[in-house]
Amino acid sequence: MENALQFALQNREGHLAELLDFLAIPSISTQPQHRSDMVEAAQWLAEKMVDACLENVQLFDNDGHPLVYGDWLHSGPDAPTVLIYGHYDVQPAEPFDLWETPPFEPVLRDNYIYARGSSDDKGQVYVHVKAVASYLKTAGTLPVNVKFIVEGEEESGGHSLAAFIPENQELLAADVALVSDTAMIGRDLPAIVYGLRGSVYTFLDVTGPSRDLHSGSYGGGINNPLNALAHIIAKLKDEQGRVLIPGFYDKVRPLLPEERELLAAKPFDQDAWLKEAGSPEIWGEPDFTLVERLAARPTLDVNGIIGGYTGPGRKTVLPAKGHAKISMRLVPDQDPREIAAQYEAYVKSIAPPSVKVDVTIASANAPSISELHTPAMEAAAVAYNVVFGRKPILAREGGTIPVVGQLQSFLGRETVLMGFGLPDDRIHSPNERFYLPNFYRGIETSIHFLDEYGRRSRV
Amino acid sequence: MENALQFALQNREGHLAELLDFLAIPSISTQPQHRSDMVEAAQWLAEKMVDACLENVQLFDNDGHPLVYGDWLHSGPDAPTVLIYGHYDVQPAEPFDLWETPPFEPVLRDNYIYARGSSDDKGQVYVHVKAVASYLKTAGTLPVNVKFIVEGEEESGGHSLAAFIPENQELLAADVALVSDTAMIGRDLPAIVYGLRGSVYTFLDVTGPSRDLHSGSYGGGINNPLNALAHIIAKLKDEQGRVLIPGFYDKVRPLLPEERELLAAKPFDQDAWLKEAGSPEIWGEPDFTLVERLAARPTLDVNGIIGGYTGPGRKTVLPAKGHAKISMRLVPDQDPREIAAQYEAYVKSIAPPSVKVDVTIASANAPSISELHTPAMEAAAVAYNVVFGRKPILAREGGTIPVVGQLQSFLGRETVLMGFGLPDDRIHSPNERFYLPNFYRGIETSIHFLDEYGRRSRV
Repeated sequence: MENALQFALQNREGHLAELLDFLAIPSISTQPQHRSDMVEAAQWLAEKMVDACLENVQLFDNDGHPLVYGDWLHSGPDAPTVLIYGHYDVQPAEPFDLWETPPFEPVLRDNYIYARGSSDDKGQVYVHVKAVASYLKTAGTLPVNVKFIVEGEEESGGHSLAAFIPENQELLAADVALVSDTAMIGRDLPAIVYGLRGSVYTFLDVTGPSRDLHSGSYGGGINNPLNALAHIIAKLKDEQGRVLIPGFYDKVRPLLPEERELLAAKPFDQDAWLKEAGSPEIWGEPDFTLVERLAARPTLDVNGIIGGYTGPGRKTVLPAKGHAKISMRLVPDQDPREIAAQYEAYVKSIAPPSVKVDVTIASANAPSISELHTPAMEAAAVAYNVVFGRKPILAREGGTIPVVGQLQSFLGRETVLMGFGLPDDRIHSPNERFYLPNFYRGIETSIHFLDEYGRRSRV
Repeated sequence: MENALQFALQNREGHLAELLDFLAIPSISTQPQHRSDMVEAAQWLAEKMVDACLENVQLFDNDGHPLVYGDWLHSGPDAPTVLIYGHYDVQPAEPFDLWETPPFEPVLRDNYIYARGSSDDKGQVYVHVKAVASYLKTAGTLPVNVKFIVEGEEESGGHSLAAFIPENQELLAADVALVSDTAMIGRDLPAIVYGLRGSVYTFLDVTGPSRDLHSGSYGGGINNPLNALAHIIAKLKDEQGRVLIPGFYDKVRPLLPEERELLAAKPFDQDAWLKEAGSPEIWGEPDFTLVERLAARPTLDVNGIIGGYTGPGRKTVLPAKGHAKISMRLVPDQDPREIAAQYEAYVKSIAPPSVKVDVTIASANAPSISELHTPAMEAAAVAYNVVFGRKPILAREGGTIPVVGQLQSFLGRETVLMGFGLPDDRIHSPNERFYLPNFYRGIETSIHFLDEYGRRSRV
């Protein structure tokens, strides 16, 4: 291990240069015009896996974007196997004009790497590639068996991996999944996330007249699809933040006093959080704390809306149609398919006959929750403590990592979410960034984790 | 008059060719990139006025788009003066992909002229230019004095003309205003519109966080401006079509039984109307007929809405802001300034403190209603009867012609709204068109009107 740590330290510049190359590829999975960039990013990553002395490196092609796989399985029959997951796709970068420097021209500024995908998730997954390389290029061996599976659809529904997992259980078989796609509490306070929200993402289309009409000539005589869309949205969630879909809360696991205490123990500066969000005030379900609302309670948000005339100035149209992107965040034990069905049935039930309403379920991902006391969780705690000088906080997060729920279905609840991002990394927003020291410390933490987990699971 | 009619008949091809040139100029008043096109259209029209032997032809420049003026005032001290109003600006043409032929490449198809502005209003105002030309190029005189005022901001608020009228009452002084910016009932059934709705056009901006946030990380803890916008819109008009702004209906002049009878007498095929609109069903205030809802009742419509991620696929953002364009149509005796103030106060009262809400009043125009029995109204009825073989229907229309309300303030209720459009001209929509025979018959009707009105008002 010492040699691996030494190697990581001596090769920092080279590792950073590689990451910047990776970040320069605009691998936006949801936008069709970036399809070839997706292939380029996958191939780039596969080359770096080969360079890290991983074996069986290959791209699995499918209807979506390729999956990148690589392994090293020579640690002996007693050694456990770690499945390292990450994603090489990134969120769209719009609105471009709010970026201080272009999203795909990575730059270093104030000890941060600025680029779309720097924190979510290229920077974090690349940590583990370099940790493994540091072992294999020095000792020529690893303390455990390792498999990598890196997908290109985390931001676009994860359909390929969701189909791949059940059909390739032997290939992906492991004792634990290791995922770095979450955030620490602060620069010097690491966190292991043991719970994630699930999600259901939907498109709602409301159609009225067959074309945009003159609002003076027709207004008052036919229903306006944008007014109708507003009425539908207003009936989905009330003004206090409670979702109004019948049955929505039926399977929500009650928050027991012990867990509320654990969540309350998370260091959390509400004023700083609000300032960072830039919203006028904290808001949400009155019976829950902010930390609970953000991580342990389900919710519903309009992610985008468009309809009618949206150019400059006025246009007096009664629009033909309106479109909204509406998503829900779920918590254990809500079933995403059941919630999607409840949503669709409810929307149809409140849709007036004076407009046509179409619902599309774009994706549905299960929430997840992990066991707190396992060898891998304890190894992660030790590794963080060595590198960051502090034991990690156990936390739940509001975001969704679809694969975690899927991997849990056959790996059980042995998932370690070891994040190196920071809360103000602006993932999914303009000016996304990754704290440079965390890139280096992440590699060291991964090296320590593999060592510690190997020792603990052989005992 | 016979010579004028003969001239109009012999010069049909030339008049049509001129109109097509006029329609080819993309004079979109609301879009800043078309500012030079606006000047070109105004200059083009002024040249044609000079060619029609009108005098004092000039452009009145101002902060907005130029006003085009021309007159011929040699009909003698006893002769009345007709102020002919029209507008050379047109609606935006978006969405372009729904046009069968480009909006500013006018073409003839199936006896229709297809182009943006063909019916609203270039084709209709040009009718009168050619009627006057037909008199002055043959007889060298007109039966009445004539003034033209053609504006370039009818589709963008009409601010310049609204400011010009009170400062130029002598220049615009007339016995009657003649306006052709409305529709007939059908190809062979003309209509004189005696009532128009007013309008208040507003922009509503709702701002939440300072940037688009990750909906997983922040969802449930701050208010989403798009959800808040939907709640506000849902509170503006109920699902039966009743506007919920306090005081909104206070000054609405009750529809008396006599007027309800007059409106019911208008030939109106509800099924054909609905089919043409392409909406699933007729809808609106339960206590009023469709004709009443469309012309004699006020309403409120969302004309456009945008916010958050609107590109292809999914993006899990909690958006920073939402924007809606919301307009109301008013009827006598609602005061547009008072309604605008009520709207703004109501929106502010229902806006939650968890988002920032800004209201902009983009325009406010009074509704109008004309006296039914005047020499000019009767002359218009005679002129229509001669050319179309039928007496016109007296109707109210749902649209707004801001200048009518403004002219009524100093001309009184002597306004004749003599329309040559058809109900399915698709004004404000893709594939706007003007029925070619109505262009020629419009010129003839205008010639007859000037003759008949001159005769009646001298008696």
